[in-house]
Amino acid sequence: MEYRIAYADLKKFVGDVFSAMGCSAEHAATATESLIAADLRGIDSHGVARLSGYVRLWEVGRINATPDIRLIHESPSTGVVDGGSGLGLVVGPYAMDIAIRKAEEVGTGWVSVQHSNHFGIAAAHAMRALEKNMIGIAMTNASALVAPTFSSERMLGTNPICVVVPAGTEPPFVADLATTTAANGKLEILQRKHQDAPAGWIQDKDGKSVTDPHALKTGGALLPLGGDREHGSHKGYALGAIVDIFSAVLSGANFGPWVPPFPAYVPMPENQPGKGIGHFFGAMRIDAFRPAKDFLADMDLWISRFRKAKPIEGYEKVLIPGDPEREAETERLKNGIPILDTIWEDLKNTGARFNIKL
Amino acid sequence: MEYRIAYADLKKFVGDVFSAMGCSAEHAATATESLIAADLRGIDSHGVARLSGYVRLWEVGRINATPDIRLIHESPSTGVVDGGSGLGLVVGPYAMDIAIRKAEEVGTGWVSVQHSNHFGIAAAHAMRALEKNMIGIAMTNASALVAPTFSSERMLGTNPICVVVPAGTEPPFVADLATTTAANGKLEILQRKHQDAPAGWIQDKDGKSVTDPHALKTGGALLPLGGDREHGSHKGYALGAIVDIFSAVLSGANFGPWVPPFPAYVPMPENQPGKGIGHFFGAMRIDAFRPAKDFLADMDLWISRFRKAKPIEGYEKVLIPGDPEREAETERLKNGIPILDTIWEDLKNTGARFNIKL
Repeated sequence: MEYRIAYADLKKFVGDVFSAMGCSAEHAATATESLIAADLRGIDSHGVARLSGYVRLWEVGRINATPDIRLIHESPSTGVVDGGSGLGLVVGPYAMDIAIRKAEEVGTGWVSVQHSNHFGIAAAHAMRALEKNMIGIAMTNASALVAPTFSSERMLGTNPICVVVPAGTEPPFVADLATTTAANGKLEILQRKHQDAPAGWIQDKDGKSVTDPHALKTGGALLPLGGDREHGSHKGYALGAIVDIFSAVLSGANFGPWVPPFPAYVPMPENQPGKGIGHFFGAMRIDAFRPAKDFLADMDLWISRFRKAKPIEGYEKVLIPGDPEREAETERLKNGIPILDTIWEDLKNTGARFNIKL
Repeated sequence: MEYRIAYADLKKFVGDVFSAMGCSAEHAATATESLIAADLRGIDSHGVARLSGYVRLWEVGRINATPDIRLIHESPSTGVVDGGSGLGLVVGPYAMDIAIRKAEEVGTGWVSVQHSNHFGIAAAHAMRALEKNMIGIAMTNASALVAPTFSSERMLGTNPICVVVPAGTEPPFVADLATTTAANGKLEILQRKHQDAPAGWIQDKDGKSVTDPHALKTGGALLPLGGDREHGSHKGYALGAIVDIFSAVLSGANFGPWVPPFPAYVPMPENQPGKGIGHFFGAMRIDAFRPAKDFLADMDLWISRFRKAKPIEGYEKVLIPGDPEREAETERLKNGIPILDTIWEDLKNTGARFNIKL
């Protein structure tokens, strides 16, 4: 059972909730756009399904609705932002825009962020670069759910990497990927459907590969991209580690097992070495490398050639990163955004908390 | 059957071969160090095993031993280098050093390279940043051996990503990974041993997953990290694509199926859109983000905490990226570098071509 709601109506509702939490009008608008970019693009696990989670973090004082967000360190091409314990949905765009400004000035800009919270989907931030015809990069660490190769202990988050590249007449290249075999949202879908997970997605508390999608609740862990050593899980582990280091060791945020959890009822890890969670953003001006028109023409050629790659029999075509999300966006803008009944109830309850009707 | 040769002796031999090809003394020394960094670090597929391949590319005129390597475009934090069709083993260090110089000046430096050739292992170049206590990044595209998800056509190289991060008292973090499930060198080992490959490494010409390690010779392809769609191969494909775009679309090199092949007997792809193969390098100065001593202390904490992650029963410990290669280097500096008898013969023949004795 699912409902469909018009994008504008969902935007109004979510904006009202953030405003009721005490966010300024500007912050509420920014947070809303960051959050529901996920619903629009078909990444249902990272959109309004998490709204009540953000509210609970605010209720227990882990999110500050009126944060003092500041650039605390910089060089001509870099900066570090202190997110003031604000919504990552607001801190992310603030930091990404500094990266873009620095790219305008010296060719590229790179901003690491401490003292933040979950920022929704990485693409929501990286895609700000496209408005300036720049390459955009966004990554974030997250609380530990992933076991490195040979580890039975959870040490890393699903730590996504997003890279967006503008094209000329083709739509942009938008790659946004968790550095795990499967995202947690996919496990939640299997749990709801009472289906097993494929081998290579999760392990139990002793590090044995299992298919029970509930294994995370009994001390299990998600597996790094690759799944096992023989299939390159040490590479997925290394990629997740790079995201953790760029996002948190470079900024002074928490890293590894010390990253704050998203569920407000989970206690904070002890002896945290840093502040909040960390993100990392980058922007590269095309004409700092080549005349933009040459680059855009070659990017069009890249995309059209890959789209024409010979498909395996039974498959329609080879996709370009960003294709499925763009198709979802077109469909959802037209027909409304589908919301599962359980999420719909959760949203209604969250609204009721502030006397806002859905 | 294998031989052991002292590092210094191998270095002398390889340097003499590059000199005999016509490289300047400086270029011969640089190329040698880049190449045999692979042998030293245990990446036997990328070291002297390829020396005769470089010589053959020079013989057919695809490698210029006296290249005009030039910075052809720049901004304060970026540059594009034309490798003049030189050895990637020489072009790589030239470009990486520009990235480092720009990082000294404005915090970070980013250099894309066109008109180059194979550069050995990415770590050989990225690790130059460690000498300046910087974060180093290196990637390269390569001739198409990899099929994107749903494609039966080879469209990408094994396109490695290397990221190196200095630490304080701990050894540095060195991640260097092909964006495929398994590197081509691992297939060659299975071929020599007449063993099957695990499922998820390769597909045949029709896109069916197979275990025959020779499938590449009959139109098959390596699989992107993840192996199949269910295990995230679209992520490995996206990562390989990012490397291709940063290395080649940003520089004006060839990309996708147009990248020149390494074997000199394989004809060049028709209608190439760019020049040679492409690389991408980056350097980030630590103190452009945080005081270096704070960063190095946190990096030590990161490494020591991950090293202490609880291992799965039956495994000794959780590794830090770079651990196995550093152990190989220590052992090989002491006991000499092992060379398979077939490679030993190949080296002797290559030396004989120039009247150089091994």
